[in-house]
Amino acid sequence: MNFNLHQYLKKKQELVNRYLKIVLGQYDQNRELIQAMDHSLMAGGKKLRPILSIAAAQACGKDFMFALPACCAIEMIHTYSLIHDDLPAMDDDDLRRGLPTCHKKYSEATAILAGDALLTHAFNILSNPEQIFKKYPEPQIRLNLISKVSLAAGIQGMVEGQMLDMQSFQLKQKDSLTHLKKIHELKTGKMITVSVEAGALSVGTDLKIIDKLIIYADKIGLAFQVVDDILNIEGDPKIMGKAAGSDVLNDKMTFPAIIGLDESKKYAENLIEEALESISLFEETATPLRAIAEYIINRNH
Amino acid sequence: MNFNLHQYLKKKQELVNRYLKIVLGQYDQNRELIQAMDHSLMAGGKKLRPILSIAAAQACGKDFMFALPACCAIEMIHTYSLIHDDLPAMDDDDLRRGLPTCHKKYSEATAILAGDALLTHAFNILSNPEQIFKKYPEPQIRLNLISKVSLAAGIQGMVEGQMLDMQSFQLKQKDSLTHLKKIHELKTGKMITVSVEAGALSVGTDLKIIDKLIIYADKIGLAFQVVDDILNIEGDPKIMGKAAGSDVLNDKMTFPAIIGLDESKKYAENLIEEALESISLFEETATPLRAIAEYIINRNH
Repeated sequence: MNFNLHQYLKKKQELVNRYLKIVLGQYDQNRELIQAMDHSLMAGGKKLRPILSIAAAQACGKDFMFALPACCAIEMIHTYSLIHDDLPAMDDDDLRRGLPTCHKKYSEATAILAGDALLTHAFNILSNPEQIFKKYPEPQIRLNLISKVSLAAGIQGMVEGQMLDMQSFQLKQKDSLTHLKKIHELKTGKMITVSVEAGALSVGTDLKIIDKLIIYADKIGLAFQVVDDILNIEGDPKIMGKAAGSDVLNDKMTFPAIIGLDESKKYAENLIEEALESISLFEETATPLRAIAEYIINRNH
Repeated sequence: MNFNLHQYLKKKQELVNRYLKIVLGQYDQNRELIQAMDHSLMAGGKKLRPILSIAAAQACGKDFMFALPACCAIEMIHTYSLIHDDLPAMDDDDLRRGLPTCHKKYSEATAILAGDALLTHAFNILSNPEQIFKKYPEPQIRLNLISKVSLAAGIQGMVEGQMLDMQSFQLKQKDSLTHLKKIHELKTGKMITVSVEAGALSVGTDLKIIDKLIIYADKIGLAFQVVDDILNIEGDPKIMGKAAGSDVLNDKMTFPAIIGLDESKKYAENLIEEALESISLFEETATPLRAIAEYIINRNH
């Protein structure tokens, strides 16, 4: 296979960053609110979620440019969640990706408002993308995207996942695999799944095919978290950027802590196999999705 | 005129509260996130914004039940903004309407997440109201509502207004009437205006008529703030629930501080006159909107 994933990720990252810049570029760059939003949006994230949207649209054999409004909206929601999670009242982090977190660089108040503005603007982009994007889905699809994305991000998704994560730290429910899976499913899984779904929806894909993509996304989302936990034990601290074993030191609920290291590895491998199986109906158009799944299991950071 | 505004406001408040209860009633009431959202939504607010939506729909001579999804969404967004504004990093308030603020009753983290969830869920209701509401606008109108509401609440509206309000406190730009008007326009005005607009849009009103309603809303929104400032000087502390003159003590930028008390009263009266003038084309259907405008200028708390 001649497909170069590294090149692919880099090019798609640049594309998403370019459009995010266009979105914020419409506003007065002297405003602190815009600067704070830009700081966190452009802080060098992998842009995994929008790239999954693009790869899903490609798998369906369609023009992925139709997915760019959803890409920008989803990345804005992901970024708002990081800004709020980093706040002193939550995880209290000073650094993210080597840069000061939003509240450290600006202020807590500005960080709260920058998060609020990113979340709000995501729905503005989805409802009314005409101004910036040359291609965008028709109204009924945009409404469907808003419905799906707001569900994945809200009460029954990401926000509740963060609540459960904070509470589980208090409760020390370390023995419950079901509970751990539920936290990951809500906190990160639903947004990863809706990213894939939104890419396919944006290009007008058949619901039966979307169901296959949803299974793929559910599996790789969970596998990503399991591999994260494994790397925390076995990873090279130099590549990881943090000390190995920090989860154990912090008494964190992890897959290896509950089912053991070997079982965790098998579990992650099975999830990736199931993900690939679910998209076996696609021809070469799904090469990027397949490569992303394999990257998740083989990555070392 | 036999119209009883007090009765009207009470009945419409109860209607909005009933629907907000139905919305949240669908979720597990043992969850702290749901409890925190409910605590702030049901904390006895006037529900002015949704009532304006209902009154605008009525002015257009249509069935206002079509406006209820917008009513609930807008009240959720208003409530999220109060929760976040009350946080220690912002206004640091312990009490609101005589009850503990969300972060005092629960925790800062829960309050941040409850606000995030309310904001997110507002867009879920607007995009996909089928489950709960018996009547709701057609898809193209819902998409339009999401676009308008997200604009009023975000970068170019409420969130930026709160940013400017915080910065003006640092900058002490007390002499600028233009600056004060801009803060009010963004922080509270745009959401009041979109409330009226959303009510009319929800029942499918002609754009020319909506333009008249928008002028009405812009004027009463600003008048409301001017009267607030006047009452802070002249109001009866027993009725107001806070000491008269607290704005002066807190060195707050107000209309009386910039243009004087008498000019402020004239200004508020003119705004209400202009508001009423703008809806003079309506027959008796606009009685509630007219009564609300007169209430704003004559209220004593």
